[in-house]
Amino acid sequence: MNLRTPGPIPLADDILEAMSWPMINHRGPEYAELLDRVTDRLKEVFDTRGSMYVITGSGTAAMEAAVVNTLSPGDRVVNLSIGAFGDRFGEIAGIFGADVTTLSFTPGEAVDPDRLRQTLTQDPSIKAVLVTHNETSTGVVNDLEAIAGVAKGEFDKLLLVDGISSVASLPLRTDAWGCDVVASASQKGWMAPPGLAFLSLSERARRAHAEARMPRFYLDVAQYESYLRRGQPPYTPAISVMFALDVALGKLLDEGMESVYRRHAEIGRMTRAGIRSLGLPLFPEESVASDTVTAVAVPEGVDGARLVSLLRAERGVVLAGGQAELAGKIFRIGHMGHCAEDEIQDVLDALEQTLPQVGFARPL
Amino acid sequence: MNLRTPGPIPLADDILEAMSWPMINHRGPEYAELLDRVTDRLKEVFDTRGSMYVITGSGTAAMEAAVVNTLSPGDRVVNLSIGAFGDRFGEIAGIFGADVTTLSFTPGEAVDPDRLRQTLTQDPSIKAVLVTHNETSTGVVNDLEAIAGVAKGEFDKLLLVDGISSVASLPLRTDAWGCDVVASASQKGWMAPPGLAFLSLSERARRAHAEARMPRFYLDVAQYESYLRRGQPPYTPAISVMFALDVALGKLLDEGMESVYRRHAEIGRMTRAGIRSLGLPLFPEESVASDTVTAVAVPEGVDGARLVSLLRAERGVVLAGGQAELAGKIFRIGHMGHCAEDEIQDVLDALEQTLPQVGFARPL
Repeated sequence: MNLRTPGPIPLADDILEAMSWPMINHRGPEYAELLDRVTDRLKEVFDTRGSMYVITGSGTAAMEAAVVNTLSPGDRVVNLSIGAFGDRFGEIAGIFGADVTTLSFTPGEAVDPDRLRQTLTQDPSIKAVLVTHNETSTGVVNDLEAIAGVAKGEFDKLLLVDGISSVASLPLRTDAWGCDVVASASQKGWMAPPGLAFLSLSERARRAHAEARMPRFYLDVAQYESYLRRGQPPYTPAISVMFALDVALGKLLDEGMESVYRRHAEIGRMTRAGIRSLGLPLFPEESVASDTVTAVAVPEGVDGARLVSLLRAERGVVLAGGQAELAGKIFRIGHMGHCAEDEIQDVLDALEQTLPQVGFARPL
Repeated sequence: MNLRTPGPIPLADDILEAMSWPMINHRGPEYAELLDRVTDRLKEVFDTRGSMYVITGSGTAAMEAAVVNTLSPGDRVVNLSIGAFGDRFGEIAGIFGADVTTLSFTPGEAVDPDRLRQTLTQDPSIKAVLVTHNETSTGVVNDLEAIAGVAKGEFDKLLLVDGISSVASLPLRTDAWGCDVVASASQKGWMAPPGLAFLSLSERARRAHAEARMPRFYLDVAQYESYLRRGQPPYTPAISVMFALDVALGKLLDEGMESVYRRHAEIGRMTRAGIRSLGLPLFPEESVASDTVTAVAVPEGVDGARLVSLLRAERGVVLAGGQAELAGKIFRIGHMGHCAEDEIQDVLDALEQTLPQVGFARPL
C-alpha cells in the first residue's frame, strides 16, 4: 500500500524497528536521557528556546493543552478558521469557557491578516489569537509570519498556533515570529508513529499559564515541567513512540531543517503540477497551497468517495477524502515526512488509470 | 534487565514485533476491523456489556475521562483514597469543580467499607463514589466487590473505578459488581506498551454523561461513540499500540481470564513468601496485598533508594521505589502480565545478594 494520507505516513525501517525495542522504566536513567535528548531536539526543530513538553495523546490533545494552559473562562479570543481543524480549535476554547469570536474564511482560502487587524482594532479586550498554520482539511497553508506580525507585532496578543501538520515540514520560526504556544504531533512531518503530541510555550505563555484558570489536570504543563526537571514524565508515556521519535529526530537534524523544508516545497510543487497535468483542479489557489498535503477538487459528476475507494482497492494507493461538508467534494494527497518523487508519481499514475472509471474525461 | 516495575512490563516478542508493523490509515477499513475487534475483546476482559472506548493517553487520562464524562461542577462525591493514585483521582475531580470528600486510609491499608457506609448515610446529597481498585503506590488491593456492594447495592450511587493496574490481572466483574465507569491502561496487565487507555461506561454512566457539564473535548466519550459507529477513532490514535494490544488480547483470551487471574494469585503468593523468607517485612497486611505489585517495607537503617539503585546497576533488576511520602520507605516489585516464576526468583536472589551491601542483617 502507498499510504498517502496526511498522517500517519509511511515510516522508514529503522524508525519502525525502534518501536519494537524492549520496555524500559520511564522513571529510570535510560528514559531520563531519552527525554532530555528528545526535548532538546524538539526545541531545535520548533526553532525555540522556550519550554517544550511531550504529551501522550493525539494532536487534538495538544490543541486542548494550548488552550487550557493559557486561558481562563471568559477570556475573549479570536479564532482564525480556514477549515475543520480551525473550527476545532475554536470549539475547544469555547467548551472550556472562552468567549470566542471566529473569523471564518471560505474553505480553500487562507486567513486574510487584514480581517484580523480590523477585529483586533475594534475590540481591544481580546486577549488571544488562535490560528491553524497548515489546515490539513483543505490543503491550505496560512501566512503565519504575517498573521503573527499583526497579532503579536501590532497588537501584542497571546498567539496560540496549531502547527500539527506544519512543524518539521514547513518553516515555522516559533521564537522569531512570536508564537507563544505551538502544538504538533508525532505522526506528521516528524516521521514517527502517532501517540505523542508536543507543545512549546514562550516565556509569555508561561506567565499566562500562571494566571490561567481553565480546569486542567492531564494536560497541565505545570506537572510536565516539574517532572521534567527530574528527567521524568508525570504520567506513563508512549515509550515506544519516544524511541522511534528519537531516531526520526536524529535523521531530521542530520539532514538539516532547511533541506527538509526545501524537500517539502519541491514535492508539493511536483504534486500540484502532476494534478494539473491530469486536468484536475486544485482545491486551493496555488499561492496558498500546502506543501504537506494537496487538496484536489473532485470534478463535477465524479463520485469522490468511489474514486478514493477504487484507488485503494485496485491500485493500492491510500488517499484521504474530504471531511465534514467537504466529504465527496475533495480528496487529499499527503506528502509530509520523507516522501519520494516516485511515491507521488505512483499516485499520479494510479489517478490517471482510475479517473476514467469514475467518468472523468480529461478536458482538452 | 529484569524490568519489574508495576508497568511498563517486559513484553513477549510477538507483541513487540507488532509495534513495528507499517502504518495504516486510521480512517480506512483495516483500522475499522482492528478497532471493532479490540473493542469487543476489551469488553470481554472488562466483563461488561456496556460501552468501551480506547483513548490515546496514559491511565491518568482515563481517570480524568471517568470524572469529566459523568460529573458536573458542584457535584458531591466521595473519594476513597488508600494512596497516591487515590489522591490523584480526588484531585482531578476537585480541579474540574466537584465537591470532594476524601476518606483517606493509612498507607498500606485497604478501604473499610463501613466508613463509606457511614459517610453515605450521613450525606444523602452525595452523587458518586470514586475508588482505586488496586493501589499501585502501596501494593494494596481493595475489596471492590464489597465497596460496590455499599456504593451501588445499598446506596445506588454512581461508581467510578480506577482499574488501571487491576483489569486484565485481577478479577473485576464490571457489570456484576455494578461499576459504572472503569478506567485502565495498556502498559499494565494487558501486556502491551503504554500509550492507550480504556474506559468502560454502564448505561447509568451514559445517562450521567448526558447531564454532566464538566468541560471536556479530547476526553469526551460522545465523540468516541459517534466515530466508533463508523469504525473510526475521533482523533489519530497510537496505531502501533493498537496492533500490539490486539495481539496481547488474543493471547489473554486464548489462555482464558480465570487462568490469568489464577496465575497472578500464584505469582503474588510466591513473591510475598520469598520476601518474607528474606526476613523483609511486607508493607501491607498479607490479606490486602496486591497480586500485581508487591510493596516491601524498607527495614530500619537501610537506604531504600540506594538498594533500588544497586539492584539495577549490579544485578540488572529494575524495581520501583516509593512515591511521594513513601519515597525511601518502601520498594515495589511488579508482577503483572506474563511474569514467570524464575523472573521473581531472580529478583529474590538479587535482593539476597544486595541486602548485606546496604547493611541489612537478616533477623534470626
